Amino acid sequence: MKEIKLAIMGFGNAAKAFTKILVNKKRELEADGLYFRITAVSTGSKGNLQGANLLPEELLACLETHGHFRALESSLTGLSTLELIQQADYDVMIELTPLEIFSGQPAINHIEAALNRGKHVITANKGPIAWAYKELTALAQAQGVRFLYETTVMDGTPIFNLTKATLPYCKVTQIKGILNTTTNFVLEHLAKGEALDDVMAEGRRRGFVEADPSLDIDGWDAAAKLTALMNVLMDAGLKPTDVKRQGISHITEADIKAAQAEGKTIKLLCKGHIGQNGPEAVVEPVRIPLSDLYAAIDETS
Amino acid sequence: MKEIKLAIMGFGNAAKAFTKILVNKKRELEADGLYFRITAVSTGSKGNLQGANLLPEELLACLETHGHFRALESSLTGLSTLELIQQADYDVMIELTPLEIFSGQPAINHIEAALNRGKHVITANKGPIAWAYKELTALAQAQGVRFLYETTVMDGTPIFNLTKATLPYCKVTQIKGILNTTTNFVLEHLAKGEALDDVMAEGRRRGFVEADPSLDIDGWDAAAKLTALMNVLMDAGLKPTDVKRQGISHITEADIKAAQAEGKTIKLLCKGHIGQNGPEAVVEPVRIPLSDLYAAIDETS
Repeated sequence: MKEIKLAIMGFGNAAKAFTKILVNKKRELEADGLYFRITAVSTGSKGNLQGANLLPEELLACLETHGHFRALESSLTGLSTLELIQQADYDVMIELTPLEIFSGQPAINHIEAALNRGKHVITANKGPIAWAYKELTALAQAQGVRFLYETTVMDGTPIFNLTKATLPYCKVTQIKGILNTTTNFVLEHLAKGEALDDVMAEGRRRGFVEADPSLDIDGWDAAAKLTALMNVLMDAGLKPTDVKRQGISHITEADIKAAQAEGKTIKLLCKGHIGQNGPEAVVEPVRIPLSDLYAAIDETS
Repeated sequence: MKEIKLAIMGFGNAAKAFTKILVNKKRELEADGLYFRITAVSTGSKGNLQGANLLPEELLACLETHGHFRALESSLTGLSTLELIQQADYDVMIELTPLEIFSGQPAINHIEAALNRGKHVITANKGPIAWAYKELTALAQAQGVRFLYETTVMDGTPIFNLTKATLPYCKVTQIKGILNTTTNFVLEHLAKGEALDDVMAEGRRRGFVEADPSLDIDGWDAAAKLTALMNVLMDAGLKPTDVKRQGISHITEADIKAAQAEGKTIKLLCKGHIGQNGPEAVVEPVRIPLSDLYAAIDETS
């Protein structure tokens, strides 16, 4: 049995879902000789934990019952997230702290600290990939450890591994897609004639419109994702601020009706390629014919 | 430099495209320490070849100029395809002979013969995967060699490797898609009001409607592909004859107009899942709303 010690930094929805997988797939993993042991957990406001074997079932039950980790008294620690990363006993650090889209921090510092200790790192945070992909990849390589980030963009679709593991000797020449759920949801419902306030309320209820949706609406989230895709798949060396970016806040009912009159719909499209003058990345609302594949990408799909 | 000797059985469009890749990617492959040497080639009617180093450039030029391999006199052999497989000196046998959809032969025999000699096998022929996936996979495993078949279904989309290499501990529970180009092309153009004869002529001109299109039109090609997908991804153990299959030959202009009146389009949809009574596989024309993703899968996409 190979034992792998995990430090989970940040414990929101992604961490909960991951911890549930550890519980649900425990038998399958053990049948393959893999045993995972959580030895450190940090959160923004629910307490930080350190221990020899923090059981995933107990972590989930504790959060479910109390909404925080204070009930796991014997494992509570006063160490900060960064101190845990620097001092705890683990093999793999899983970086799941919240995204700060304009700097990628403090996630970049967390990842560097773990890599500098020779620990493997997995992150679901697109900030570090959008802002520091090259540096972090080089550091991981120099340290002889793995730096994995599949779920940072298009979670659920293994876009990075798809390209690396299944398309050898192929070159990605163009990226085109709809990368932001919130704007796609908003545009689709506006096109149905619903009022913006109602659409946003429904999106909040369903959990994918943030309290402050401006990062989505203004195209920053899509720009960060496009940057991450282009940095990894095309070695573009971009920052999110390099993207030619236009959000959807200026789109009016009249715009939507004009598009419909042409048999079209408006989508926030992301496009990237390496042009003659270097990488070109654009996020902008585009009128798309209803028969087009992108017109059929609805809501959260 | 690692030298890999290839026997290419069947030399139609797929083999030509593959041989061109060997030429075009030669430098990249050599930079990675890989050198490919073709040592045997068989064709249906253009002659069979055996040699220490049949250069890809010369094979392609010879076919281009003469339409057959008779000009490569010193390499011509009287050995049959199966004899070449049994006797030639190679590391990997690439099976590209034409599909025989109701038996998977003679490709299955070819693959068995190579595996029995302890040779690796790559095939683009879906027949063996639809009819003998389990047996061939077990034989390859017993012989300690690789049996690869990515391009048999959805060529260009790495569907099998995607699932195996990038979705560990995930289970495929359902397959749904449009798998046959000819019927998709025909249905789309019929929906535009074009006459069946004109549509078929255009498809033939563009190279994806066969002289005898009945295997496509009657849904057999789609059924074989669905079988291959379900056998590999769901361990379904199906034969193409197990698929509940309906083609598009009975579809009339009236059917198409009736669908359009409902805001729908007709597509030949393939669906598979493992139900309570075992695997269930269906290929049938279905009315699909125009806003649906499958409605946007047009022509050859």
